[in-house]
Amino acid sequence: MRVLGVDPGLTRCGVGVVDGAPGRPLRMVGVGVVRTPAESEIGPRLLLIEQGLEQWLDEHRPDLVAVERVFAQHNVRTVMGTAQASAVAMLCATRRGIPVTLHTPSEVKAAVTGSGRADKAQVTAMVQRLLRLDAPPKPADAADALALAICHIWRGGAQTRIAAAVAAAPRARQEYRR
Amino acid sequence: MRVLGVDPGLTRCGVGVVDGAPGRPLRMVGVGVVRTPAESEIGPRLLLIEQGLEQWLDEHRPDLVAVERVFAQHNVRTVMGTAQASAVAMLCATRRGIPVTLHTPSEVKAAVTGSGRADKAQVTAMVQRLLRLDAPPKPADAADALALAICHIWRGGAQTRIAAAVAAAPRARQEYRR
Repeated sequence: MRVLGVDPGLTRCGVGVVDGAPGRPLRMVGVGVVRTPAESEIGPRLLLIEQGLEQWLDEHRPDLVAVERVFAQHNVRTVMGTAQASAVAMLCATRRGIPVTLHTPSEVKAAVTGSGRADKAQVTAMVQRLLRLDAPPKPADAADALALAICHIWRGGAQTRIAAAVAAAPRARQEYRR
Repeated sequence: MRVLGVDPGLTRCGVGVVDGAPGRPLRMVGVGVVRTPAESEIGPRLLLIEQGLEQWLDEHRPDLVAVERVFAQHNVRTVMGTAQASAVAMLCATRRGIPVTLHTPSEVKAAVTGSGRADKAQVTAMVQRLLRLDAPPKPADAADALALAICHIWRGGAQTRIAAAVAAAPRARQEYRR
């Protein structure tokens, strides 16, 4: 399974590609950041993110895209940009028929460090160890995108089975909703 | 000038097309809502919005797209969806080289009613009057998209001149930033 992890952001959108399967060694395929100039208008910035992500999708053909789930933070302006960049990532993947999964930051931290409250250094150290890299991944803020991809590879199996079971029982699901 | 107004939303994305120029009568060209099922995954919903908006852009070929500027509201979940739907709208327009302008809800209300705190009924009544319609526009929640387009037609001229002046003086602008 090849997963593209996307850590969405308007100024810096982290991307990381990892190959792997639960219980098997992981392999880093690529890591980087799609940048857009902060002084540009929002429309052209979203277009640059789309073009950047399309290049990653073209080059690496992932089976799945894992995007960080955006939550409200203190800085509302940042949240908006993050939500908008994540929309572009989800759109690019869905347009190609690639399934998208969202993971919260604590799910990602818990997956790679065992603690949902791990700090950035701990996440980076574990990403380096799990991918057997000689040095921390660069650029530094792309480590989160790799962690997202790893998180999905390890959690993805169970989630996919649950989703399949829910899809197979639409009646039961509707009854719950009423 | 033909303007496509977009009132972004994940479940209902209002769209309205208006022809006009400052000081000239306005004409409604089209109005509608792009809907996506609330029970679907976010990726496919964003794709449906993209496809719906592309149809409007194909059919009406606007000179400009006016999108409601998203602000933090009480319901954070709604804000995220709105921000994501607005990202799709801005992306679709920018991809075609169509300029995008954002207007706040109070700017829109002030433009069509004279008051930034007008209620929905007042906005709808003025939209009907300004576009010389026999009845309030339907669907009802698409009136905001028409109001956005009208707001842009009336405010757009000045904004475009300001933007052109700023673009013509990049040095002065950079000095302000430091």
